[in-house]
Amino acid sequence: MLINCDLGEGFGSWKMGPDLELLPLIDLANIACGFHAGDAHIMRATVTAAKRHGVRIGAHVGYPDLAGFGRRAMPSTAQEVVDWTLYQWGALGGIARQQHIMPEYIKPHGALYHRLHQDIPTLDHWCQALKGLPDRPALMLMAGPAGSVARECAESHGFFVIAEAFADRAYDPSGQLRARHLPNAVLDDGDAMEQQVRALQMGVLTLDGGVELGLSAQTLCIHGDSSGALDMASRLRAVLST
Amino acid sequence: MLINCDLGEGFGSWKMGPDLELLPLIDLANIACGFHAGDAHIMRATVTAAKRHGVRIGAHVGYPDLAGFGRRAMPSTAQEVVDWTLYQWGALGGIARQQHIMPEYIKPHGALYHRLHQDIPTLDHWCQALKGLPDRPALMLMAGPAGSVARECAESHGFFVIAEAFADRAYDPSGQLRARHLPNAVLDDGDAMEQQVRALQMGVLTLDGGVELGLSAQTLCIHGDSSGALDMASRLRAVLST
Amino acid sequence: MLINCDLGEGFGSWKMGPDLELLPLIDLANIACGFHAGDAHIMRATVTAAKRHGVRIGAHVGYPDLAGFGRRAMPSTAQEVVDWTLYQWGALGGIARQQHIMPEYIKPHGALYHRLHQDIPTLDHWCQALKGLPDRPALMLMAGPAGSVARECAESHGFFVIAEAFADRAYDPSGQLRARHLPNAVLDDGDAMEQQVRALQMGVLTLDGGVELGLSAQTLCIHGDSSGALDMASRLRAVLST
Amino acid sequence: MLINCDLGEGFGSWKMGPDLELLPLIDLANIACGFHAGDAHIMRATVTAAKRHGVRIGAHVGYPDLAGFGRRAMPSTAQEVVDWTLYQWGALGGIARQQHIMPEYIKPHGALYHRLHQDIPTLDHWCQALKGLPDRPALMLMAGPAGSVARECAESHGFFVIAEAFADRAYDPSGQLRARHLPNAVLDDGDAMEQQVRALQMGVLTLDGGVELGLSAQTLCIHGDSSGALDMASRLRAVLST
Repeated sequence: MLINCDLGEGFGSWKMGPDLELLPLIDLANIACGFHAGDAHIMRATVTAAKRHGVRIGAHVGYPDLAGFGRRAMPSTAQEVVDWTLYQWGALGGIARQQHIMPEYIKPHGALYHRLHQDIPTLDHWCQALKGLPDRPALMLMAGPAGSVARECAESHGFFVIAEAFADRAYDPSGQLRARHLPNAVLDDGDAMEQQVRALQMGVLTLDGGVELGLSAQTLCIHGDSSGALDMASRLRAVLST
Repeated sequence: MLINCDLGEGFGSWKMGPDLELLPLIDLANIACGFHAGDAHIMRATVTAAKRHGVRIGAHVGYPDLAGFGRRAMPSTAQEVVDWTLYQWGALGGIARQQHIMPEYIKPHGALYHRLHQDIPTLDHWCQALKGLPDRPALMLMAGPAGSVARECAESHGFFVIAEAFADRAYDPSGQLRARHLPNAVLDDGDAMEQQVRALQMGVLTLDGGVELGLSAQTLCIHGDSSGALDMASRLRAVLST
Repeated sequence: MLINCDLGEGFGSWKMGPDLELLPLIDLANIACGFHAGDAHIMRATVTAAKRHGVRIGAHVGYPDLAGFGRRAMPSTAQEVVDWTLYQWGALGGIARQQHIMPEYIKPHGALYHRLHQDIPTLDHWCQALKGLPDRPALMLMAGPAGSVARECAESHGFFVIAEAFADRAYDPSGQLRARHLPNAVLDDGDAMEQQVRALQMGVLTLDGGVELGLSAQTLCIHGDSSGALDMASRLRAVLST
Repeated sequence: MLINCDLGEGFGSWKMGPDLELLPLIDLANIACGFHAGDAHIMRATVTAAKRHGVRIGAHVGYPDLAGFGRRAMPSTAQEVVDWTLYQWGALGGIARQQHIMPEYIKPHGALYHRLHQDIPTLDHWCQALKGLPDRPALMLMAGPAGSVARECAESHGFFVIAEAFADRAYDPSGQLRARHLPNAVLDDGDAMEQQVRALQMGVLTLDGGVELGLSAQTLCIHGDSSGALDMASRLRAVLST
């Protein structure tokens, strides 16, 4: 079980997240590519640091929306989403190749992540286009029932899918994350989080009420911009190491 | 002698230049990469059109300055110029690879073009960094004495240089283009332009007063945004074909 | 009946529309304020030119979306729309006051225009906030039944509303513009357009099938970026002058 | 002696500086206007907070350069600087007037601040243009010999100048701030800073070696983005209160 984390989410003089402290604790760095966050200098520095720590990298691609941090659903055609993705994937590749490493995967960010799990015709068009890339990336998508249609679509196009789960978020019986405004949506108790990681390692979560939810995940996500990111990364690393 | 032309210099809803009419007439398309002009959609469409016409493509890399069209000298370190170049080169590569073609060269744009011919320490740092790219681009630089130091620097790093000359601009004895505010700086007479192309094919320009200027060029530049771009391209194509 | 037209819709080196030729023919210039189009220099030049021609000016406020020309529905709260509007209204005011003229009205642009006619709670919040301005603008909104709820809302807050109609677009019995993809949606016949202007002067359009549509308008809109803008402006001016 | 501080220097999701903690300690808030930092929402919130604390506000106008935080010298004509200033001054005014307060002054930011103290023809053109504003702002410029030419120019156009000094920076005999890379350029000793404030209140600084430097200042500057901003503001407030 790999730990993935969003890195390089500053812009210009603005910082976000303790990137350098997080790197020793994670396996996969989702690097912002200048559309929702990040710029060429931050990307280069993040690639350099990830390489030094042996952390593998992927392109964290978002809508072109710095002011909204990629969290606003930007009306756009499937082809526009493809263009934006190829541009960002390529840009990170240009910076990384020069350092003799390659981005290995694409993780959509924010509102684009949500769209590609729900708007399957757009996802299908997107996969159809991305498979034209000679250096075909893996795709990081949601583990469990909530991501199953998207994963099947991606796999039907021949993509390797990295399914991600959340160690600190409660799941609904439908496999969706419990909405943040509901009680107990976030597991802020370290023991509860550890228990969820153990269950994720087994591939079955036992929810409130005893319902069992099958959830096969290859990676756990840490949001690099949250205040508790470092604590969470340390604890996840400790749990996964034992 | 190849004809190169700046293409894809619109942005969003704004157009610039008769790209589709120019493509049948040129050999090399310098494609704007979203920093001084262009966006992911225009880039994709330009790559598609260039491929259809068998036109080879390069990355026209500029300062990150849409509002200034890359014509303002942006204070920046050599490393920042490297980062911006890798980002743009990669972004075009992402879009082009998906269409199974590859950008072959980099042409700096506007204020960055001037800087890289004059600020040799920055050029040297830039070349040093770019040669780390596994898919090493050629570099399009100025032909003749005015570009000789830059070309030597690039070649010392192992780059193939595409030297460009201007068919419609008068040259100084120093090999610089005559400044636009001086008389006869622009050859707007078709016959004079044809005569200059013939001389460039021989590699020697005879200037006013009889001075001979050696100028070995592989390509002639057309500015795609000028009103006479189509006429000039047609005439150059005709001259080169005979 | 006044003619209003969108002006100043270039950006940086990019042009859009024959602004200088349009100015002698129109009464109200809707000036782009840098969010969907325009920049500080274009705004200043447009204000100067409008003043020279005695054309009154308003702020054409849009979503902050140069790449999408303000035509994309940007998810945003009512308060965000207020902030964007105050910023743009103020920016144009700063430029215009220095030339001793004042913007008189606000016209929402593109996707924001549509939203403010349909999302009445947002419109209500917007009006509530804008009436805090000491230099209260008029609001340009849609004439006829399709704009009636919005106009009533604006008027209930004490705004003067400038109702606009379209001389070259067919109306539905509901008072909406006929969708562009339907037949005869655009009146490209000069006589038909003249007939519609005459009817608008009377305040009653007779639609296909004989239905009568009451439509009381103070202004006719010309889109400054359309290819036929100049022809249309000349013809409208001629019709209105006789 | 008033304390001025740069506020509202975040952008979108990015924060910079402890604005809310600083407000009770300062007199004048230099509010970023969206060009080098800030956006319409941050500006509105900053104006609201400043008003609540009775802090007077000014427009902190910079080059249009979010990526460079306004610290890069952007090649531009005097008229372009005027346009940018009017736009930003107006934008803040639109937001503030709606809350029934008015920006009172303009402080140029970063590279523009330096330029307007050194490039007097540009400053002269700028002042000439700004005095066309019906709501003429005061101008915040540098106190002492280093700012004297600029202040005279501004005053000759009829502007009220707010001269600012720095409590935590050593001065050269020329009246310039000692360059940061030189020893003892920054007074990080609280007692030294208090002593400098006392001297500034008298209008005469005694420099190393005993040289006396006349420096008549109306305000002391705190950089809101520095880590020690809060400590410095508290100490300055304490010194000024006794």
